[in-house]
Amino acid sequence: MPDVHESYNALRRLSASGAPSEQISDCLRAIYVESTTVLDGARDRELNTSITGKDYFAFDIAGKRSRAVNVDLFRATSVEPDSVLRALERGEVTQIPADAINRAVYKMAMAFCAAIDLTRPNDRKTQGTYFEHVVAHLVALRFGVPAVRNLDVLNLDMRAELPTDLTFDLGRGKPKFHVPVKTSTRERVIQVWAHQRIIDGVFGVGRFLGLLVCLAETHVAERTIHVQEICLIDQWRIYQLFIAQLKRVYYLDVPVAYSNLAAEFPRIHVKTFGEFFHEADTLADDA
Amino acid sequence: MPDVHESYNALRRLSASGAPSEQISDCLRAIYVESTTVLDGARDRELNTSITGKDYFAFDIAGKRSRAVNVDLFRATSVEPDSVLRALERGEVTQIPADAINRAVYKMAMAFCAAIDLTRPNDRKTQGTYFEHVVAHLVALRFGVPAVRNLDVLNLDMRAELPTDLTFDLGRGKPKFHVPVKTSTRERVIQVWAHQRIIDGVFGVGRFLGLLVCLAETHVAERTIHVQEICLIDQWRIYQLFIAQLKRVYYLDVPVAYSNLAAEFPRIHVKTFGEFFHEADTLADDA
Repeated sequence: MPDVHESYNALRRLSASGAPSEQISDCLRAIYVESTTVLDGARDRELNTSITGKDYFAFDIAGKRSRAVNVDLFRATSVEPDSVLRALERGEVTQIPADAINRAVYKMAMAFCAAIDLTRPNDRKTQGTYFEHVVAHLVALRFGVPAVRNLDVLNLDMRAELPTDLTFDLGRGKPKFHVPVKTSTRERVIQVWAHQRIIDGVFGVGRFLGLLVCLAETHVAERTIHVQEICLIDQWRIYQLFIAQLKRVYYLDVPVAYSNLAAEFPRIHVKTFGEFFHEADTLADDA
Repeated sequence: MPDVHESYNALRRLSASGAPSEQISDCLRAIYVESTTVLDGARDRELNTSITGKDYFAFDIAGKRSRAVNVDLFRATSVEPDSVLRALERGEVTQIPADAINRAVYKMAMAFCAAIDLTRPNDRKTQGTYFEHVVAHLVALRFGVPAVRNLDVLNLDMRAELPTDLTFDLGRGKPKFHVPVKTSTRERVIQVWAHQRIIDGVFGVGRFLGLLVCLAETHVAERTIHVQEICLIDQWRIYQLFIAQLKRVYYLDVPVAYSNLAAEFPRIHVKTFGEFFHEADTLADDA
């Protein structure tokens, strides 16, 4: 059986074009199985937290510890990743409840990230790149168009590409989407709003709807193994008011502090990534 | 004699208010002397580079290597840091040529950064904080007003502070300045333009002139000890066109690739930090 790092390299090759394919789905299935095999050799280590309504643990192999894993999202009985991939391929994903889709994607993403945390402890880039490929594939399947990387943003006598963010173009007269993907945001998140601003400036405000997709904002203190969610609410409001407007922020593990951002003006709509699959066709509808 | 780390802690305490004082100048003099003492115990290690017209070396103690130091800026006979500090305190700094001011500030900044590279090799934050304090003090002396940290940027029913950037307010009807300070920029630089955008949004475009102050953009390859300047020209042009407009970018060691940015439209005016001290009074004048 190939190991998870080999399959990850295969995923990168298959994802280069941005177009979704059955091979990518198969590769994600293989990575999920291989990640689970790595994690089967680990023991659970309970982490303490004061986040209301959430419990976390870490996988542990010989004292090496993975990132914090949400017990309920990862362990509760629910739809398996394979079923979500199949439903997406058949165009029937809305038959699965948003919460179940979210849990399946969380499981798939977190199994790989935790497996790499244990097998390559100093690596952060692999998990981020993997997560971007997963989101690119699932969103491309849902929208039915390929992901485009490196958007051309200059014009007239200049050419330049804006690197790293995904975009999806549903075609003439239909919405376009700007989809930055991050495993966590912290202080680097200002880049997301700034890229949205650039895209608004180049193509016109409202031409691309910004959908930020994140895994979680958990941070584990090294010594106390206390789990916190690092949230910068005031900064987010400032960015949304003065840099650009994101249409949605999706999380697999929604931080408690961000879940209330839609309740107060200026609203930032933070939802589970599972909800994206249900509202994808109507995102451009509201007034 | 106190060591350089103790004096650094004193500098942080003295700089907390943002107001320039003789004690801060004395502390900077002491830090320069103590840094030089550390560097006297190091040997020079020649670094190779293909940057036109520049030569670099590193300080080396028992195989521990400092960042790249520009031979000409650091070693050529010129005005000493002490003379620049005294001239600033007397309001006579424009009597010193811009190039000589730049060399003196480069020496002062680089001596400390290299000393910390050698004595605390995993520390990056100390050098950045020190450099910000140096720039805050010199600019505050030149403008004759204190540096303000943590600008209030929200209004009406919300309050929030934009952290880290320096601002200087010359008073009613006079210009205000937004002065982000970085030892090097790399991909994080988008934050600078995004902060300028926020300030433009809150206070009105043109109310604060943006002056980015940087040390250098040198990067030393670990194995080959080859020095490169990491420059992102296209990205800078995109940021300047679509996020906000910076009035100046000042470097102590101006990267070759950025020095030509003022020649082509859209212009970004990149100059030596020494030039700031000569043009400080006329920055707001042009049409």
